[in-house]
Amino acid sequence: MAPPDKADTPDEFALIAELFAPLAVSAPEALALKDDAALYAATPGCETVLTVDAMVEGVHFLPDDPAESVARKLMRVNLSDLAAKGATPKGYLLVTAWREGTPLEWMRAFARGLATDQKIFGIDLWGGDTVRTPGPASFTLTAVGEVPAGQMLRRGGASAGEGLYVTGTLGDAALGLTVLQGGLEGLGAAHRGYLADRYRLPEPRVAAGGRLREIASAALDVSDGLMADLGHLCAVSGVGARIELERLPLSEAGRAALALNGELIEAIAGGGDDYEILFAAPEGKDAGIARVAAETGTPIVRIGTVLPAADGITPVDGTGRPVALKHLGYRHF
Amino acid sequence: MAPPDKADTPDEFALIAELFAPLAVSAPEALALKDDAALYAATPGCETVLTVDAMVEGVHFLPDDPAESVARKLMRVNLSDLAAKGATPKGYLLVTAWREGTPLEWMRAFARGLATDQKIFGIDLWGGDTVRTPGPASFTLTAVGEVPAGQMLRRGGASAGEGLYVTGTLGDAALGLTVLQGGLEGLGAAHRGYLADRYRLPEPRVAAGGRLREIASAALDVSDGLMADLGHLCAVSGVGARIELERLPLSEAGRAALALNGELIEAIAGGGDDYEILFAAPEGKDAGIARVAAETGTPIVRIGTVLPAADGITPVDGTGRPVALKHLGYRHF
Repeated sequence: MAPPDKADTPDEFALIAELFAPLAVSAPEALALKDDAALYAATPGCETVLTVDAMVEGVHFLPDDPAESVARKLMRVNLSDLAAKGATPKGYLLVTAWREGTPLEWMRAFARGLATDQKIFGIDLWGGDTVRTPGPASFTLTAVGEVPAGQMLRRGGASAGEGLYVTGTLGDAALGLTVLQGGLEGLGAAHRGYLADRYRLPEPRVAAGGRLREIASAALDVSDGLMADLGHLCAVSGVGARIELERLPLSEAGRAALALNGELIEAIAGGGDDYEILFAAPEGKDAGIARVAAETGTPIVRIGTVLPAADGITPVDGTGRPVALKHLGYRHF
Repeated sequence: MAPPDKADTPDEFALIAELFAPLAVSAPEALALKDDAALYAATPGCETVLTVDAMVEGVHFLPDDPAESVARKLMRVNLSDLAAKGATPKGYLLVTAWREGTPLEWMRAFARGLATDQKIFGIDLWGGDTVRTPGPASFTLTAVGEVPAGQMLRRGGASAGEGLYVTGTLGDAALGLTVLQGGLEGLGAAHRGYLADRYRLPEPRVAAGGRLREIASAALDVSDGLMADLGHLCAVSGVGARIELERLPLSEAGRAALALNGELIEAIAGGGDDYEILFAAPEGKDAGIARVAAETGTPIVRIGTVLPAADGITPVDGTGRPVALKHLGYRHF
């Protein structure tokens, strides 16, 4: 099934040499991308945390999203998984399945996006695979991180009576996708731009995640939407929860959108792509949490309380009355 | 971009529970596939070897290839990379991008293929991602293996004067693809079937690879074709090579095909998908190599000699005369 050579596209080895080898140059693990595999020695006393996420054109990113932001989002959704586990990112493997006819300039911009985020997060490319596809482009990133042995944050571990907290702001990405699809026309241009940027470029909470290892009893990252991911945390922990919708942290743009249309609370509590950390922590940790927030520059607010499993998961309004939400998170099929 | 729910396809979580959780049940690293990441503690004294390969429908497998063999080939091409590095496979992460409308029965068969090979190779599923795609199906597997610290086999390390060896037989997969595409009609049905099977189901040389750590000076797996991969080994090692084409190990079916058409030596020396180990070893290792071959049930033959870089890479015939090969291996674009 060897395809005919194409004069207009560099072959795999030329692409690796031009685009990817520079991303691996600082990492001995990558063996200069000239071997069959990467070689990694864990830091003594640490365990390895592995996660993988794929993004498919037309499903997880828009065909006209800029290449840089596609690459950076791919990296960041994986770093968000590591962050929520309290892991320090170390390196990554990348599979690029380029759509036939992808301009070399698009590929170069993709690599520039990776280079930008490698510097920000202090990681390097260790290896990967480069293939072509007759279908939509897709990209798969396997991220490798480390935690001190026995200290990885897990979804299980929350207990009734604990507080529920979230980093950053919620709903921006879901609202940003709506903007990119032509919605929220009543919103000002600055707010629209802010929300679109938040959809395209999530902020993995790496610094905060590492600090939460000693504070949180359970954690995960909000990727499917707050209510869906809260459901996952509660299911694995064997607990229920009450979420106070008025406490959900909103950006200025998110507040403006909600003021235009109160029903957008559905998108804020149910939409995905937030990539914030949702965690539970025992009472008495508020000072420690405030310190993590201040020292890592990460907003963290309490949004609810862990309840016994029998109480289920209940969003409530400012008066404590249960609110029925229709949309409980992104379904992948 | 949340797609509409589809009544006929289970959602991601149902698919994970039915298809994938059973593949992860024996591995504590997988955390029952209920967390954001896998957690892996390297065996003390070992380093971690990581490799990733993707297979795209219509590029790396045929649309009517059976689901079991697609899954098993995906696993095996990755295990072959580990084997060529002398690594012991430990676990894997899997990304499935199912084509829209993929029948559940096809997915189930895919998972059965993984289960079969997990038993054969003693590994488990540790994590992954399941997405849908409007394009051709694609599958990405990240394999995790281990080697004693400092002992990974590399492409670099071969020296002039050493012997060049290869496991198994060469060319079967390339000839098998030709069969599956309707070629080699003059060959008997049994041979045609054998070759097609070798294309669909490579045999990663895991047992032999582990034993070669103490024998080989350099190694890689033959995936792009013997001549192309020999070129990679020579480039990284900074050497040349002479390959004696009459010594290339052929299966009975391969011999029969070559007898029909002598030009098929091109496919045998240049075609890809062999997934055998090509390695260099110093003189004096023949007894050790024979022992590895006997004790692991892996045919291993010497096919040439490492030369100084200035001598280039030369295939020769039985009289020592250079042979010009047109096709030097699979190009990925």
